[in-house]
Amino acid sequence: MTALIRVGIAGYGNLGRGVEAAIQQNSDMQLVAVFSRREPTSVTLLNAEVPVYAMAEVEQHQANIDVMILCGGSKTDLPEQGPYLAQFFNTVDSFDTHAKVNEYHAALDTPAKKTGHVALLSVGWDPGLFSLNRLFGEAILPQGETYTFWGKGLSQGHSDAVRRVAGVKKAVQYTLPNADAIARVRNGEQPVLSTREKHNRECYVVLSQGADAETVCNSIVTMPDYFADFDTVVNFIDETTFDKEHNNMPHGGFVIRSGVSGTSSKQTIEYSLKLDSNPEFTASVLVAYARAVHRLACAGEVGAKTVFDIAPGLLSPKSPAQLRKELL
Amino acid sequence: MTALIRVGIAGYGNLGRGVEAAIQQNSDMQLVAVFSRREPTSVTLLNAEVPVYAMAEVEQHQANIDVMILCGGSKTDLPEQGPYLAQFFNTVDSFDTHAKVNEYHAALDTPAKKTGHVALLSVGWDPGLFSLNRLFGEAILPQGETYTFWGKGLSQGHSDAVRRVAGVKKAVQYTLPNADAIARVRNGEQPVLSTREKHNRECYVVLSQGADAETVCNSIVTMPDYFADFDTVVNFIDETTFDKEHNNMPHGGFVIRSGVSGTSSKQTIEYSLKLDSNPEFTASVLVAYARAVHRLACAGEVGAKTVFDIAPGLLSPKSPAQLRKELL
Repeated sequence: MTALIRVGIAGYGNLGRGVEAAIQQNSDMQLVAVFSRREPTSVTLLNAEVPVYAMAEVEQHQANIDVMILCGGSKTDLPEQGPYLAQFFNTVDSFDTHAKVNEYHAALDTPAKKTGHVALLSVGWDPGLFSLNRLFGEAILPQGETYTFWGKGLSQGHSDAVRRVAGVKKAVQYTLPNADAIARVRNGEQPVLSTREKHNRECYVVLSQGADAETVCNSIVTMPDYFADFDTVVNFIDETTFDKEHNNMPHGGFVIRSGVSGTSSKQTIEYSLKLDSNPEFTASVLVAYARAVHRLACAGEVGAKTVFDIAPGLLSPKSPAQLRKELL
Repeated sequence: MTALIRVGIAGYGNLGRGVEAAIQQNSDMQLVAVFSRREPTSVTLLNAEVPVYAMAEVEQHQANIDVMILCGGSKTDLPEQGPYLAQFFNTVDSFDTHAKVNEYHAALDTPAKKTGHVALLSVGWDPGLFSLNRLFGEAILPQGETYTFWGKGLSQGHSDAVRRVAGVKKAVQYTLPNADAIARVRNGEQPVLSTREKHNRECYVVLSQGADAETVCNSIVTMPDYFADFDTVVNFIDETTFDKEHNNMPHGGFVIRSGVSGTSSKQTIEYSLKLDSNPEFTASVLVAYARAVHRLACAGEVGAKTVFDIAPGLLSPKSPAQLRKELL
């Protein structure tokens, strides 16, 4: 029997918890430790038998971890933790600050190459699976246009903006793909669409006692940057309903490549996700790619990588012959 | 400037013509020769300046071709041509006899390794892009079910069967995914569905003079194996409409992975294709993978490969840094 892949988690929030759950679904992997900047005794895992250590002592655990999955945020955690941890571990992360991706790639590549590790960045669904589909789309149908739509999905930033409106007790905001825009793209029209034209916004709001619905609604739909230029629907609901129906983190979206082959054949490739839990799905992608990272490291590869560099077969626990037989 | 990738085509039918058209859309590639078992002067290409040679003299052209795209059929052509041509060229083919894929892999692997070539088999959309999506689906959501639906697509075998019915002058048969079955899968029900439950059949028939529609319809819908167990619709149309609307080769389908993460979050990944021209799309996939084969060969790789073994970035003419910047 092959040894289990020993995985560590650095950072234990929603994403870290999702990674722990995803590892439990993969019988060739084992979660061996969680590292946190919080006091370790204050961190409660799904499986109480897995040890939690202080992030400060992570370096001492090098010999026991095959792949470290970084579950911190892209804004401040990963730019610091990524290059630091790549000195000691093979790593996978979900870095999603698009404008800085080549800079972050370089910051990981140097320590990873120096110490003989693989550092896989920007794994998840966007960046990640959506990126792959954008690449396949334009490589296969070079004459065409690619469209990315997001939603239906909870937007944290927009929910916060609604909650700051006077008279709002609780609120969430969902981004929705615009149905007309999707229909035009699917129809092969290759329209020019801004992000705004591709998306609508939907709010669910619980009013504070005595607040006026019309005033609140008006404050929301006219809010500059966030809502003014979008088609926005505001739904007022009672608190019981809110607590019951709006405590999840759904998300999803579409990547559509609309192209033409030969002289005039319309060809459409569509990839879509409908996710009950955004962090759990991102975690599931991270865990599958952790398997690939372990295999690449075993094969002697080093340096920073992205999903573009990973042969898909490496994601599966099955052998190449089994994959050909069962899935090709 | 980098030299153009010099591509050859072995076999010039619908697929070969699609490959020629697809190469014209890729500015880093050049079609240098077509090989045919027919008399070369009888083969008319889209671009009359490209030479056509007899398949028998293919060996003489080794030095001038970086990748040979094999456009023969899986039943008799590829099992013979694949292993033969892998001795002289890096190859890509669309072998789709599922039950023999590991046997064919072995038959290519030996000559390719012996002579230092890469032989990429079973490229297209199914096998090919659909296979990749089946792999991603189960690797990312190990707790779940994968569903493949085909259509709307022209089925050659079923069209032939309808044409053999007495009273039928012209006919085509389209396979359609069953809308109810797709809805149940998208809804996360994970139903158990046979191929028959997943598909309907739709025929367009031009009657011979004096033929009785009801008799013909009955002969079709009760035909064992082909139609008897399916929900089949027969549409009678006039010959002018038939010639105008049913001379294309549309196809497509869906790969849906319905899974559960964490304790109970439903997660759905859906990939779909809607193709005006099945052979042109398959050709477009072959050409993108020919680029990957050339790069692998330049990097010193040898032997038989499948889409599972190919890092997606190799399909694109863009550099890794450009891919990260534009698509990640």
